[in-house]
Amino acid sequence: MNPLFVTTPHRRYNPLKREWVLVSPQRTQRPWQGQMETTPAPVALQYDPACYLCPGNARAGGETTPQYDSTFVFTNDYAALKPDVPAGSMDEGGQGLLVAESESGVCRVICFSPRHDLTLAKMEVAEIRKVVDVWDEQTTELGAREDIRYVQVFENRGAMMGASNPHPHGQVWATKQIPNEIVAELGAQKAYYETHGRALLDAYRELEVAQGERVFAQNDSFVALVPFWAVWPFEVMVLPVRPVTSIAWMTEMERDDLAAILKAVTATYDRVFETPFPYSMGLHPAPFDGEEHPEWVFHLHFYPPLLRSATVRKFMVGYELLGSPQRDITPESAAGTLRDAAGRAGVSVRP
Amino acid sequence: MNPLFVTTPHRRYNPLKREWVLVSPQRTQRPWQGQMETTPAPVALQYDPACYLCPGNARAGGETTPQYDSTFVFTNDYAALKPDVPAGSMDEGGQGLLVAESESGVCRVICFSPRHDLTLAKMEVAEIRKVVDVWDEQTTELGAREDIRYVQVFENRGAMMGASNPHPHGQVWATKQIPNEIVAELGAQKAYYETHGRALLDAYRELEVAQGERVFAQNDSFVALVPFWAVWPFEVMVLPVRPVTSIAWMTEMERDDLAAILKAVTATYDRVFETPFPYSMGLHPAPFDGEEHPEWVFHLHFYPPLLRSATVRKFMVGYELLGSPQRDITPESAAGTLRDAAGRAGVSVRP
Ligand SMILES: O=P(O)(O)O[C@H]1O[C@H](CO)[C@@H](O)[C@H](O)[C@H]1O
Ligand SMILES: O=P(O)(O)O[C@H]1O[C@H](CO)[C@@H](O)[C@H](O)[C@H]1O
Repeated sequence: MNPLFVTTPHRRYNPLKREWVLVSPQRTQRPWQGQMETTPAPVALQYDPACYLCPGNARAGGETTPQYDSTFVFTNDYAALKPDVPAGSMDEGGQGLLVAESESGVCRVICFSPRHDLTLAKMEVAEIRKVVDVWDEQTTELGAREDIRYVQVFENRGAMMGASNPHPHGQVWATKQIPNEIVAELGAQKAYYETHGRALLDAYRELEVAQGERVFAQNDSFVALVPFWAVWPFEVMVLPVRPVTSIAWMTEMERDDLAAILKAVTATYDRVFETPFPYSMGLHPAPFDGEEHPEWVFHLHFYPPLLRSATVRKFMVGYELLGSPQRDITPESAAGTLRDAAGRAGVSVRP
Repeated sequence: MNPLFVTTPHRRYNPLKREWVLVSPQRTQRPWQGQMETTPAPVALQYDPACYLCPGNARAGGETTPQYDSTFVFTNDYAALKPDVPAGSMDEGGQGLLVAESESGVCRVICFSPRHDLTLAKMEVAEIRKVVDVWDEQTTELGAREDIRYVQVFENRGAMMGASNPHPHGQVWATKQIPNEIVAELGAQKAYYETHGRALLDAYRELEVAQGERVFAQNDSFVALVPFWAVWPFEVMVLPVRPVTSIAWMTEMERDDLAAILKAVTATYDRVFETPFPYSMGLHPAPFDGEEHPEWVFHLHFYPPLLRSATVRKFMVGYELLGSPQRDITPESAAGTLRDAAGRAGVSVRP
């Protein structure tokens, strides 16, 4: 790493979004006098009679969650998207200023385990492997539909990240149109592929593994690293060693390794501040638009908000919303912290 | 408004960022079982001996805040940007994947009033006018510098938006490089200007005033509205009737009217849930890059997080971070709520 960028304010380029992030390493001394987050009490109950995701309990829609024993998927009772939406669009004034169009899609909830007290970090790799398979089933089923062009699997973990229930679960939102973030990543990956004849994220993984500085966990099939252009303090990206566009193309061994790296990342997170680490995470397969996508490499993003302790978070507010994202600790220093935490978590690190 | 988009999921286009927002009006019935925010206790003290922004008190840098009687500006003691940064850049591997460059700039704090217990909403219009003038002075001074190309004035208000001190204050971050949001707004406004021979936001204001549906306050020089493409539940944009690129070009009357509309917006916000309304807000003048910018119209953005009550906020998490922003209440319904609140606040509404 250029020593200038260890201590001096600078900006870094995110080639996947073609945007910049401001890095202010000198700012870590700032005392925090603002909002303190509450630390969640550990979930003690294996079964919570008041939880609508626990087996046998009633849900808002009037249905009952069945007695499931690994994963369970159902349509979100308060779905943001619906499949049968009347087609329609508007451009009032005809100047492209008041433009809307109907959007259809599917929102489902994916329970990771019947056990209310578990999290990905606490589940066995074999159990997480079942979650990987259900992500694949959902993505493949929805992605094959005529009326779906993108399938976004994600998890909001922790009250700080808007999760309203600690029961281990994620969501899938599938849409007719390709969402903003994917449009941006697609454009960047296509442009790189045209220029270099190689997938951007494949070349990037190779550079990162060679340098080692931002990598904190890896196995035969996956690498977990803090991206050079990370925005969130402990942001993580998981990249496959063999470039594929989705889980559907992964071998049995790669799926097992994906489950193992997911456990490694989440267990490491929980050791950073010795607290259940909140995050939003999600899978980014290639779009399901009937094209081949040799430019696209499947990857996962983890966006966790904590900055300095279990109770002090990074706020993405004023300057971030109006100008550019800004971070204090460098990605290299965050990766060092994660490597230490991985050691404490007993995650094998192979840099 | 097309009746389809009052009740049916759809997406709306933001022509200023050239991105989409997902709108799910049917989702407002969703019960909230997640994190509840704490309501801030009203600030009672006019002078707080522990506040470093109150006149006569010591600051972190060792300096003393003077006895000021309207506004007061100083360099941020924990600045994210510094003016004298050694120049440097890197592109390790030469593929545009590990790119960084030093960034220089200035971070200042702008106290709006010596009174610890005031807010923009509670200040007199004549006092806010002094804030408008200090924003202009700062922007003009910094914008004239060779090493500055953008001046971002903003306010984070409320602990929920990362403000660490309730004393009425904002910030200014000025940078050598133009930040992401401005790059996006610049590209969109230039493209529109080339096609239509007119400024995008001027044409937009005209359409909105003609329709009235999303406007909730206006005076002779400014219009406050919920943008058609609003992301945050009660997001607001303030647009000038006479298109100018910055406060520097405004007449005395326009500056008074800007102060008045700022009071109208913030006082209205405080009545929505009868609680001090948290927000991040900021000014978007044209870049200070030596060009003319006939395409650019000065505007203000307000991004407030509250959704349904003083304690239930909108979380911009999983799908929003990984896919596209999503909202539940329509901008038209938010504007209606704001119009009612403006009535209660005694703000004259002229739709
Ligand atoms: O006001 P402060 O303490 O400088 O900091 C606050 O505003 C900054 C600019 O939006 C953000 O980067 C910080 O995360 C936030 O806590
Ligand atoms: O559907 P949930 O989990 O209740 O809702 C949560 O995740 C959604 C998708 O990221 C967000 O739109 C909501 O703001 C958040 O509270």
